[in-house]
Amino acid sequence: MIPEDDRGLLLGDGLFETILARRGRLEHVEAHIDRMIRGCAVLDLEPPSQAAALAAAQGALVGLDAERAVVRLTLTAGGGRGLERPKGATPRLLASAGALGPPVQGVRLATVPIRRNDSSPASRLKTLSYLDNILAQAQARALGADGAVMLNTRGELACAAAANLFWIDGGRLFTPALDSGVLDGIMRAQVMAAASGIGVETVEIRAGRETLDRTEALFLTSSLIGVQAVTALDSRPLEAHPLIAELARRCD
Amino acid sequence: MIPEDDRGLLLGDGLFETILARRGRLEHVEAHIDRMIRGCAVLDLEPPSQAAALAAAQGALVGLDAERAVVRLTLTAGGGRGLERPKGATPRLLASAGALGPPVQGVRLATVPIRRNDSSPASRLKTLSYLDNILAQAQARALGADGAVMLNTRGELACAAAANLFWIDGGRLFTPALDSGVLDGIMRAQVMAAASGIGVETVEIRAGRETLDRTEALFLTSSLIGVQAVTALDSRPLEAHPLIAELARRCD
Repeated sequence: MIPEDDRGLLLGDGLFETILARRGRLEHVEAHIDRMIRGCAVLDLEPPSQAAALAAAQGALVGLDAERAVVRLTLTAGGGRGLERPKGATPRLLASAGALGPPVQGVRLATVPIRRNDSSPASRLKTLSYLDNILAQAQARALGADGAVMLNTRGELACAAAANLFWIDGGRLFTPALDSGVLDGIMRAQVMAAASGIGVETVEIRAGRETLDRTEALFLTSSLIGVQAVTALDSRPLEAHPLIAELARRCD
Repeated sequence: MIPEDDRGLLLGDGLFETILARRGRLEHVEAHIDRMIRGCAVLDLEPPSQAAALAAAQGALVGLDAERAVVRLTLTAGGGRGLERPKGATPRLLASAGALGPPVQGVRLATVPIRRNDSSPASRLKTLSYLDNILAQAQARALGADGAVMLNTRGELACAAAANLFWIDGGRLFTPALDSGVLDGIMRAQVMAAASGIGVETVEIRAGRETLDRTEALFLTSSLIGVQAVTALDSRPLEAHPLIAELARRCD
């Protein structure tokens, strides 16, 4: 239980991470905690120590016997009302865990009306103000899809509602640049490293939606889904692609 | 205390209202609750009943002896992780109250880089995903001002970080249209009605930032601050204006 005056609850003032655990072992946990600490600098929050965050994440797993689990680390700005944080407010670190089913194998995406607000530093963080992502996902469902493609305010490709976006064009790999308003995803970096390892460079790009009209293949990445092939975009069927399968294998 | 799996805390999934109370009497409380119920329809949340919300707001005031107080009503989407709400999740209604000082008489504003995301329905609601407003206020402070002027993604005037914006030009009153990405403010409506009562119509407009370079006077409105004169905008001093004082008196 947390107090009713917590700024995470009242105003979405804080950050989170979702970390995959396999048979009790946390994946890329240092990278997740580093990202939370970098986010604290952006939001002017006192960061947790690496050790405290790691202990919290590991503690959440105790007693959970699951092949796959998700650990959620939540850092709120602490107690206090109003737009401006009270002096001396101390961030509150929470951790919880739950069993996770196997990842879904393919998804159909739809481009949704809600834009990613790339004018805000929050567009490059996992913050407790996540409602636009919830609404984007609901818009995708209303369009008959499983997930959303979000554009930013300039109409450039950004991301899915809770995953990074990649596409393959002429044998090359592309993903929206971070200043398109996207999260610096842990799995995004893993995929870029894995691709580089097999001689495929990733182009980080600011590109309009029309770019995807001619793309060979599309996939999503996140810590929980890994590498997930997209089977249709706005009702256009997309083929399986050997590079997606290869990257999924290497990043698993 | 609220459970750690509440979606208001985890994802900013919910709505709030801040209601002024004077000597224990709630101001415009029906309008506030109506707005929360309309917001529930937008977010696909089961709304509270008028009676339950009113009882919660009044209950929060019990034992609080203050000339001016603020009652905060918070409606979260209930418990459950993930972008999509679990079936049968029941919204959670919270109410709290605190004493409030007298309103500040004049504010200096600065135009901030963070834009109001008018592509999102959340831009027209008071939601628990309020971080962009917190960041906008912090940007205004960093610019040496007391508050922010936020533009929308098209560069049009929207609002302050937690207040509606009005200006006076050639004896006429202007305010950003709701589709600029602004809250349908209770005090905004009060001011428009009061102005109409003294023969001044309000033009709801989509207008660029440059509009304010020639404006005679500027003011903010919200339930907590009432009508608040702006004394400077981006370091340009602004004069007091008799219409602002008159509207402040009529809406007090």
